[in-house]
Amino acid sequence: KSTSYIYYSWTSGGTPVLRKAMAEAQPTSDTVGQEAIDQEQVVDPWSVSGGADGRIDYNKLLEQFGCSRLTEDLVERVERLTGRPAHPFLKRGIFFAHRDLHEILDCYEKGIPFYLYTGRGPSSEALHLGHLVPFMFTKYLQDAFKVPLVIQLTDDEKSLWRGLDIDEARRLARENAKDIIACGFDASKTFIFSDFEYVGGAFYRNIIRIQRCVTMNQVRGIFGFTQEDNIGKIAFPAVQAAPSFPDCFPHMFGQRKDVRCLIPCAIDQDPYFRMTRDVAPRIGHQKPALIESKFFPALQGESGKMSASDMNSAIFVNDTPSQIKDKINKYAFSGGGATVEEHRVRGANLAVDVPWKYLNFFLEDDAKLAAIGEDYSSGRMLTGEIKKELITVLTDLVSRHQRARAQVTDDVVDAFMAVRPMPCV
Amino acid sequence: KSTSYIYYSWTSGGTPVLRKAMAEAQPTSDTVGQEAIDQEQVVDPWSVSGGADGRIDYNKLLEQFGCSRLTEDLVERVERLTGRPAHPFLKRGIFFAHRDLHEILDCYEKGIPFYLYTGRGPSSEALHLGHLVPFMFTKYLQDAFKVPLVIQLTDDEKSLWRGLDIDEARRLARENAKDIIACGFDASKTFIFSDFEYVGGAFYRNIIRIQRCVTMNQVRGIFGFTQEDNIGKIAFPAVQAAPSFPDCFPHMFGQRKDVRCLIPCAIDQDPYFRMTRDVAPRIGHQKPALIESKFFPALQGESGKMSASDMNSAIFVNDTPSQIKDKINKYAFSGGGATVEEHRVRGANLAVDVPWKYLNFFLEDDAKLAAIGEDYSSGRMLTGEIKKELITVLTDLVSRHQRARAQVTDDVVDAFMAVRPMPCV
Repeated sequence: KSTSYIYYSWTSGGTPVLRKAMAEAQPTSDTVGQEAIDQEQVVDPWSVSGGADGRIDYNKLLEQFGCSRLTEDLVERVERLTGRPAHPFLKRGIFFAHRDLHEILDCYEKGIPFYLYTGRGPSSEALHLGHLVPFMFTKYLQDAFKVPLVIQLTDDEKSLWRGLDIDEARRLARENAKDIIACGFDASKTFIFSDFEYVGGAFYRNIIRIQRCVTMNQVRGIFGFTQEDNIGKIAFPAVQAAPSFPDCFPHMFGQRKDVRCLIPCAIDQDPYFRMTRDVAPRIGHQKPALIESKFFPALQGESGKMSASDMNSAIFVNDTPSQIKDKINKYAFSGGGATVEEHRVRGANLAVDVPWKYLNFFLEDDAKLAAIGEDYSSGRMLTGEIKKELITVLTDLVSRHQRARAQVTDDVVDAFMAVRPMPCV
Repeated sequence: KSTSYIYYSWTSGGTPVLRKAMAEAQPTSDTVGQEAIDQEQVVDPWSVSGGADGRIDYNKLLEQFGCSRLTEDLVERVERLTGRPAHPFLKRGIFFAHRDLHEILDCYEKGIPFYLYTGRGPSSEALHLGHLVPFMFTKYLQDAFKVPLVIQLTDDEKSLWRGLDIDEARRLARENAKDIIACGFDASKTFIFSDFEYVGGAFYRNIIRIQRCVTMNQVRGIFGFTQEDNIGKIAFPAVQAAPSFPDCFPHMFGQRKDVRCLIPCAIDQDPYFRMTRDVAPRIGHQKPALIESKFFPALQGESGKMSASDMNSAIFVNDTPSQIKDKINKYAFSGGGATVEEHRVRGANLAVDVPWKYLNFFLEDDAKLAAIGEDYSSGRMLTGEIKKELITVLTDLVSRHQRARAQVTDDVVDAFMAVRPMPCV
């Protein structure tokens, strides 16, 4: 069985491409048994499908990708260094993997500057909750470490992969920038750029430096590109790689090459940055460090079939309270018992329950979350009750987001996207 | 046998890559007969080798590429429309092929604007005479039609193919710009740009539009790219294609899409623009027209072996009079008789004589050229005499170029390369 994840990283984002790939991966009913056994999980920047049980084996991913596990030790060190509690995404293992995060913390301790780099592929009018995850986490990192941040909007990538009209891709980039800004980033330390606007000069020079080090054979191995792929796709990985190097941003870092880069992203972006880390020393740069998260499940659940309609597989940040309520009540996959009687006896299966998973992302109160987990898994709390809890949490989150976004005028977007003197280090 | 041409188009330019390919194509002495028969001529933007007799069959190229022959009718029409005599390169069949040139002339007649686009890959400190050919011809076209001109310096391409350090490629681009400006272009109508400086914005958006239309399979077919080529090379054809579309230059043409483009270049660049012309209608643009020249032979001659040293296979624009004299006397391949006696009887073979070929490019006086041809081929004029004639012509040409170049300060380069309001149509 394939898995329905809501992506929140910049090159994917629950795209039709992904959905199509996943639909094709769905076994037909009469071959389920055989295919379920044969199915290998696949995770790359454009598609994710789980193993035999339809779920992602994150331990296997760590091994396959060669990332490090984000241990409790490291989380405690983050708390100690920043003097504030770790973000729930860290404490709860949602951000679960890293590359060289300890080196970034060493730098921070020694006063060597670093910056954050993340991004988004603007493929939809509004973000959904999955898309918000890396930005909420990045805002926490910016606040905690007081560091500069660059956010790449890959409008070029969306044109190359999804055939989006170029002006439409630029428009979506600006719309998405508003949702991103509404997460509360520090305007004095944050540079948001669209590739269609900012590629050129120092940035383009790094793109070429990177492209020179990577062959068609290599991108075929890393990303699975074929002879039928357009030449823009084949060259694109260098565009996502380049912002890992501080000299792409002379208005922020001048000519300094010693500024480290930390990239918060979902684990499906790891191939891009494995490639980047390979190339870095060859072009005289330090490797970017990474902090990588698990995927955010679709409403229909990790191993459920995708809904025919995109809109119903996710909560969007422009959904109304009644849409949120309807979607959760109708579509959120439940691990509760089939009947109230059965539920009271056996309790809910938290491992597959979507309301429980969503609360793990967005209910900040640890004690309350623990109580809900206990009550619900023991059968004391009913599916309707945990869904009601989730509706409250998400309605509050979304309405706060909508109020913040309403403040983000075009002038504010221009201010974040301006190439302006920003001495950051 | 392979052929030694001096390139003067923007992606080649007598590069080591070319020379290496040609050196490999040289038959060893004991297999000459067989290989000479088997050898097919090969012309692409990176290498040129002749057929069995070591010479390029331009008729075959016309057929293979699908270009049109530049007929006398067309040349006369150019003269009529511009009210001035055609450039010697036109009259003497040096520019011998075209695509849609008649459409450009139709536009000119109707007052529909067009612009010229040409370029140069900055791979050497100074240009040689072969490099000057398209720029001298482009200057004539600009003067005759009074049209805007864009000149692309592909410093990115030189980094991708020749591994040139990026700052070195940028430096050579500026140095080459000085030699180009010294050809006398109209500063009010000429925009020179380096890809490392100007890629971005409207230009980058066209690059992506083009890349979206071309697959790896297609560039493999057109350019012979392989799996081992770096991804920058694979994507690069779109960078050379994009300036064929006027909306790459909003500071010159605003948003107008009806401005036609005419590209003067050597015929080896045709593959780039065949691809461009395929893509153009798919992205809502008109196809660029082309006017294409033959190659400029090396001093050692069309079918001679390449000299080990680059410097001795061409006259460079920074050569001194004594260097010019020495190179021509020592290296210029002669079609004259082996002895004076033999020469007096049989005369010179103009078909292989380099001084004669060079005079065809650079001696403007038609009557004098005809007289030299007659005298030399009949044996009345000796090899030493025609070489002396050539030394006079080239010393004069190079010294005029050097005086003009001395006037081209960094400020002048900045002026030509500035993205400035340039209402051109």
